Amino acid sequence: MSSDSNSTPPIALDPVLDPTLGPVELTRQLCNIPSVSGDEREIADAVEAALRSHAPHLTVTRDGDTLVARTELGRERRVAIAGHLDTVPINDNLPVRDEVDDASGEPMIWGRGTVDMKAGVAVQLALAVELVEPSVDLTWIWYDHEEVASDLSGLGRAMRNHPGLFEADFAILGEPSNGTIEGGCNGTLRARVSVHGKRAHSARSWMGVNAIHRVGALLERLSAFEPERIVVDGLEYREGLNAVRINGGVAGNVIPDECSFEVNYRFAPSRSGAEAADYVREFFADADRVEIVDLAPGARPGLDAPLAQRFVAAVGEAPNAKFGWTDVSRFSALGIPAVNFGPGDPLLAHADDERVPVAQIESTAAALREWLMHDISR
Amino acid sequence: MSSDSNSTPPIALDPVLDPTLGPVELTRQLCNIPSVSGDEREIADAVEAALRSHAPHLTVTRDGDTLVARTELGRERRVAIAGHLDTVPINDNLPVRDEVDDASGEPMIWGRGTVDMKAGVAVQLALAVELVEPSVDLTWIWYDHEEVASDLSGLGRAMRNHPGLFEADFAILGEPSNGTIEGGCNGTLRARVSVHGKRAHSARSWMGVNAIHRVGALLERLSAFEPERIVVDGLEYREGLNAVRINGGVAGNVIPDECSFEVNYRFAPSRSGAEAADYVREFFADADRVEIVDLAPGARPGLDAPLAQRFVAAVGEAPNAKFGWTDVSRFSALGIPAVNFGPGDPLLAHADDERVPVAQIESTAAALREWLMHDISR
Repeated sequence: MSSDSNSTPPIALDPVLDPTLGPVELTRQLCNIPSVSGDEREIADAVEAALRSHAPHLTVTRDGDTLVARTELGRERRVAIAGHLDTVPINDNLPVRDEVDDASGEPMIWGRGTVDMKAGVAVQLALAVELVEPSVDLTWIWYDHEEVASDLSGLGRAMRNHPGLFEADFAILGEPSNGTIEGGCNGTLRARVSVHGKRAHSARSWMGVNAIHRVGALLERLSAFEPERIVVDGLEYREGLNAVRINGGVAGNVIPDECSFEVNYRFAPSRSGAEAADYVREFFADADRVEIVDLAPGARPGLDAPLAQRFVAAVGEAPNAKFGWTDVSRFSALGIPAVNFGPGDPLLAHADDERVPVAQIESTAAALREWLMHDISR
Repeated sequence: MSSDSNSTPPIALDPVLDPTLGPVELTRQLCNIPSVSGDEREIADAVEAALRSHAPHLTVTRDGDTLVARTELGRERRVAIAGHLDTVPINDNLPVRDEVDDASGEPMIWGRGTVDMKAGVAVQLALAVELVEPSVDLTWIWYDHEEVASDLSGLGRAMRNHPGLFEADFAILGEPSNGTIEGGCNGTLRARVSVHGKRAHSARSWMGVNAIHRVGALLERLSAFEPERIVVDGLEYREGLNAVRINGGVAGNVIPDECSFEVNYRFAPSRSGAEAADYVREFFADADRVEIVDLAPGARPGLDAPLAQRFVAAVGEAPNAKFGWTDVSRFSALGIPAVNFGPGDPLLAHADDERVPVAQIESTAAALREWLMHDISR
């Protein structure tokens, strides 16, 4: 194990994490180190200390509170596996506790971060320590600032600072996906659509042009619109085009001369950001103004590559498309196909009662282990 | 002239107004006494002093800064003629000045209050002093607090305090109407229309119901709607039904579960307030909630009565319907048909360059004099 010039000085760190106990116990240990976004120093120190103690086969680079740990086995293929260390704010839901799900009778670990996404990090960290001779080279990445504004992302920062460390043929992000593969992600775009009118006193409304009334036709079009379902690399991406905010009006006795609404377009990864913007402009061609206010392209799943096909086989369940935007698109932007694969129900992410089934932690780890040990890199 | 118990004590008031100089000079004098709403004491004192000096044939009652001056001739019919003494705030437009209109070459009086509505008050006050033996009994009313919230109205207050003083067969409000008769007024109603949906993450929009999209159909209906034109007592009232405000949305990535808009319905005086409310509720029957937030009924013009017909003949121009809501509806609520009739262009009311044609002051006074002196009361 070595450290490059970005490492923190090699001070003695208390090894509070023991990856050799396996991913379930490691989930408890990781969750019980609070790490709300912006406060990831302690958990990053603990992960670094665990690697120092238990993973001499990895080359570790630290950038702020992001860690990159690589095998350097000279394999033909390299897989990047990443997870974020931060959580949304704690709300009386730490330390974690074990409980049994009322409905299913399944053992669960309950508490902040169990789903999003320390169980995923635990699976990764346990395998990082365990898999000394994987069949592909591995780049393990644990990073800070995922749950906040995109420009704070530790993953984005480390990719800019150390582009060479992130080269890979395929990437897996450990975001919760119920232990199935959720491939790629839709892109997301927000646009402000404005319609003008002409002000008049409402007692003589025929002297004006009502901008709110003009918006009716645009909203009706949205309401009637059937978003597309687009198959990309074998997965079906369901799009969405929705008004998310609307605002208009001057006073209770004035015909309004301005009304605008914001739409959120979730678009399949087969479209580029520019194509998505054109699509929205075209959709509202009769509005007076369409202004793109936010745009993040999606990510192709890349599941048609042989490497990915064998991963799918190891997981043993049909992969699904990921609809929400995730950091897989940062890999996609580097030309690396990427999927989401982690324990936990994504619908429980950020919920105060988030909880992960113990069995999903184990099955996720087993599938990854199977693939990484036995894939024949071609 | 007498004063009842509501009068101010008979202190010596400086007679700064001289109604015997005629309505044009009196317009200048009235305008040059500033009387922004809430500050009408000085102008009410001046009007009272002028009546005291020049109109011993009138019985005067004062209520706050409202004056009611009545003939008591025992005529078969009584006409109430009213005007407000207050103005909107002054904006470097006092004292008044004489000028010639660029376009028409007409002599004008320029300044705050000339249009809304001291020229009208001047016509009334000059005739109140001049017409000692009118053919109908007259109730002259000058009142405070018209340009502010309806519940502050001096006319409303005096009507509540002295209902007997306001009995009449017909009423004229001196609001600017370009020297033509504008009969009655439309009512006005505001309602909040709300539509519900179901929240969902916008990445999985099909899990939710978009309340903003649902509003589209209601706005389209408004947009396509042709408001009615309703003839009441010979005048055509043009209605209006307009969205004046709209609001909805939760966040940029959430399918909104609530959207509401406010509509303003201007309705013909043939409809009661309750009928207007039913009309709006019916129009939006498929909304989740329709809440009436404001309601003021209109006023019938009553121009089919013989008394009114002779007034129309004296003015010599075809009357029009009044679309905006005015205090004529306070008379209407007492069962007294009422019209607007005064000098000045209503489109210049409240404008910083409000100005009234001198000829309109004179023609308005002449028509009123002609009718009030020669109407044969039946």
